[in-house]
Amino acid sequence: MTDPRGRSDSAALSATEFRTLGHQLIDQLGDYLEGLREQPIRSEQSASRIKDLLAEDPFPEEGSPSEHVLGRAFSLLTQNAVSTAHPRFWAYIMGSPSPMGALADLLAAVVNPPVTSYPTCAITVSMEAQTVRWLARLVGFPTDCGGLFLGGGSLANLVAVRAALHARAGWDVRGEGVTGGAGERLCLYASGESHTSILSAVNICGLGSRALRKVGTDRDGRMRVAELEERIQADLRAGHKPFMVVATAGTTGTGAVDALPEIAALCERHGLWFHVDGAYGGFAVLSPDAPSELLALRFADSVVIDPHKWMYIPADVGCLLTRDRRVLYDTFHQGAAYYATSDEQTLLGGPETLQLRDLGPQTTRGLRALKVRLCLQREGKSGYARMIGDDIRLARHLHARVGAEPRLQALTQNLSITTFRYVPEDLAADTAAHRDYLNTLNKQVLLRLQRGGLAYPSHTEVEGMTVLRVCIVNNNTTQADVESLPGWVSRLGAEVDAELRPGREAA
Amino acid sequence: MTDPRGRSDSAALSATEFRTLGHQLIDQLGDYLEGLREQPIRSEQSASRIKDLLAEDPFPEEGSPSEHVLGRAFSLLTQNAVSTAHPRFWAYIMGSPSPMGALADLLAAVVNPPVTSYPTCAITVSMEAQTVRWLARLVGFPTDCGGLFLGGGSLANLVAVRAALHARAGWDVRGEGVTGGAGERLCLYASGESHTSILSAVNICGLGSRALRKVGTDRDGRMRVAELEERIQADLRAGHKPFMVVATAGTTGTGAVDALPEIAALCERHGLWFHVDGAYGGFAVLSPDAPSELLALRFADSVVIDPHKWMYIPADVGCLLTRDRRVLYDTFHQGAAYYATSDEQTLLGGPETLQLRDLGPQTTRGLRALKVRLCLQREGKSGYARMIGDDIRLARHLHARVGAEPRLQALTQNLSITTFRYVPEDLAADTAAHRDYLNTLNKQVLLRLQRGGLAYPSHTEVEGMTVLRVCIVNNNTTQADVESLPGWVSRLGAEVDAELRPGREAA
Repeated sequence: MTDPRGRSDSAALSATEFRTLGHQLIDQLGDYLEGLREQPIRSEQSASRIKDLLAEDPFPEEGSPSEHVLGRAFSLLTQNAVSTAHPRFWAYIMGSPSPMGALADLLAAVVNPPVTSYPTCAITVSMEAQTVRWLARLVGFPTDCGGLFLGGGSLANLVAVRAALHARAGWDVRGEGVTGGAGERLCLYASGESHTSILSAVNICGLGSRALRKVGTDRDGRMRVAELEERIQADLRAGHKPFMVVATAGTTGTGAVDALPEIAALCERHGLWFHVDGAYGGFAVLSPDAPSELLALRFADSVVIDPHKWMYIPADVGCLLTRDRRVLYDTFHQGAAYYATSDEQTLLGGPETLQLRDLGPQTTRGLRALKVRLCLQREGKSGYARMIGDDIRLARHLHARVGAEPRLQALTQNLSITTFRYVPEDLAADTAAHRDYLNTLNKQVLLRLQRGGLAYPSHTEVEGMTVLRVCIVNNNTTQADVESLPGWVSRLGAEVDAELRPGREAA
Repeated sequence: MTDPRGRSDSAALSATEFRTLGHQLIDQLGDYLEGLREQPIRSEQSASRIKDLLAEDPFPEEGSPSEHVLGRAFSLLTQNAVSTAHPRFWAYIMGSPSPMGALADLLAAVVNPPVTSYPTCAITVSMEAQTVRWLARLVGFPTDCGGLFLGGGSLANLVAVRAALHARAGWDVRGEGVTGGAGERLCLYASGESHTSILSAVNICGLGSRALRKVGTDRDGRMRVAELEERIQADLRAGHKPFMVVATAGTTGTGAVDALPEIAALCERHGLWFHVDGAYGGFAVLSPDAPSELLALRFADSVVIDPHKWMYIPADVGCLLTRDRRVLYDTFHQGAAYYATSDEQTLLGGPETLQLRDLGPQTTRGLRALKVRLCLQREGKSGYARMIGDDIRLARHLHARVGAEPRLQALTQNLSITTFRYVPEDLAADTAAHRDYLNTLNKQVLLRLQRGGLAYPSHTEVEGMTVLRVCIVNNNTTQADVESLPGWVSRLGAEVDAELRPGREAA
């Protein structure tokens, strides 16, 4: 290092140090996984405590010993973060992380191969393309499709919207932009319960939020297809240019599945791009307990499924599948003097499936396909069918148990999401009149439940009601875990109600 | 599992199995790292061989033993993939992967915490926000900035373009889209040597490729600032709406750094968003050997730096920094009934820096900040300054050695990228007349070099010449590694030349 022309020895972490640190970390993580069930899901920390914790880590002007650095991070995370691996973590839609997926991430990161194009690294792009086809087969989509892995469903929805623009705008959007054509306004349709990433994609693609028609939903949270048809007709009459319908297969709030067969037929009739956001619910086609309408995702022009949701794979990894295997390449491809090229890849499917940096918004890309591949190989299709089916049955079992509990009101039950709320006995006769109070009460119940660390649902709104929401995409959850919840919520509900209405308690 | 109401036992990999597999994998990876220097960087496989390899892995209808699955992946990757950790991997711009970064990925994946918003998981978003500020400090950007981690520079450039539109279009792009305003055409500027992701961002944002003005470059690959000024004036005269200039700090081809101070002043004058794509070169501010103009990145409205390039961190992780700490939140934020909210985070900086799912295109996000944080803590700013400086000095040393080699023509040298080519002695007097032959010859030399597996440069074009391109963002590279290259290229050049011009050899 004293040589003015550069180092004479490698400056990286040595293999020996890697071994020592690695074995230590594996043991620590093994202990963590073993003890997880007995630990709180989250240790609630105040903002000032978090601030103090971070202040202990000053800007690193100089380096620190690896063991100290890694040990500190292990403590910070395992003592303060929410653990999605905990058997009673049921919030949002984050799958319990398969340790096999985590080991795959380690392997991918140490080798760190390029995953950009066939001539750059044939094996990685071929493995990704094969894994994409496997996922298509898993959910019943044609396996001669196009597709790729992305950082999650939100990015995958963005790529789908951009591809739909390319295919259906009617002019050269790459060259002209969304302002091309004869001045028609491009517009697309999704339900009011669609994921926020649809509006985000519309925003990023430069269409403006007014281009997104939010179609109303029925009581179950499903898009009203008759209203969809009316909106399209109205836009056509107004001289606008409808190009896409986004159907949701498993809404984030309550797991509702839109009427895919009817929407597919409607898109066919109007020549619209039929996109299915199945980030969560797409995998449920594997279970005979899921709505049979899910099978119609096979008719979609594009489908999003998120392995980091119902394949129990660590974040972040989403997958986009496209019926037309060339559309992503046509939408995104570019050349550059510094990119490698080759014709040999045609044997394996051609650039439209292998030139991965040309199929989406990333150039350098991690091999996130590896964790999906290895988890699928370990569990098999049959394993996923069983685990997903179990999650659905557990969520239904919870719904039944909640319904049998005196002061709990069972609400929606779709896929593996069950919603319910606490209603004091004296308010049960006219809940509508006490809606605001019940919402406040249930928000408090949820916060207290989460802070207690025993169980971790999240919340959503159902017809104006704030409700507790249990989403089981967690293959660590057992029946006993689920059965413990109604009693806890009842007790917390009574406790919070007594605090919020002390007069009544005293009366 | 036979219970019709759901599983009675966890279906996940047990902690015991995780330990066994984990220790095995650490040992295998330790062996791999130890032996890497003696291994070929890449074992060239034909497409039919790759096809056969993949055909050995059928669609997994049923599960397989974990050990088999993981072992198979280890073999597939270590025997067939390009290893960016090899001391003589010098292609593209992929940093040699720090094993510490890989261990951080493992830790993040096993705990798998949410990284979406403060109320969802305070510690992770706070750690990311702090690490973003650390990177700002590392490269001399104001630390009260906004920013976040993304999957790489391409995504970060996309987010920057979208934020610039929000800030400078002059109308409500979120609501109206890029077709709003009084019909002016939005346009932006980047050099002809800018990265492909700039055009890709323009494409995704719906502006159309014609909105991007590609400004010419000088012989060193730097944007011609006078031409930039002329193009802006011409667009203003034509009634268009310039909104952004993208300066490149380290072009992908040759590492050229645009004249940041002049471009900053020009943007200031015209009220344009000043973006610096420093994905590669931004980190070079740490070295006194880099162009001092790099320091002017501190004046940018937004800067992209890629830790998976010159911080030697496994893919994928890029970072966007914004001078205005609110602009990303204002560009992207959304609410939803199922999202958690909290006011407490104001103590730590407010939603504009902590509501990470509202600052870009991802919702569920991996904790990719962790590997950046831990590597920075291990090496310190001083360590990165030393390693980056060494890379630059090694690239210069190579340039000097190439210049001293009879049949090698040294070409560009910027940052840690050196380009050169092989020129047979009898063609040296008039290379222009033999350009096509020399290009063919050097392409063949590169392919043979890569296939041999001893050293792995890539190629680019310099003034119409196909050249070998060595980019050292590899802290495993030693001076001896660099010194071995000129001799190998000379020998391969003579060998290929003799095959391509057999008549001459016989003469």
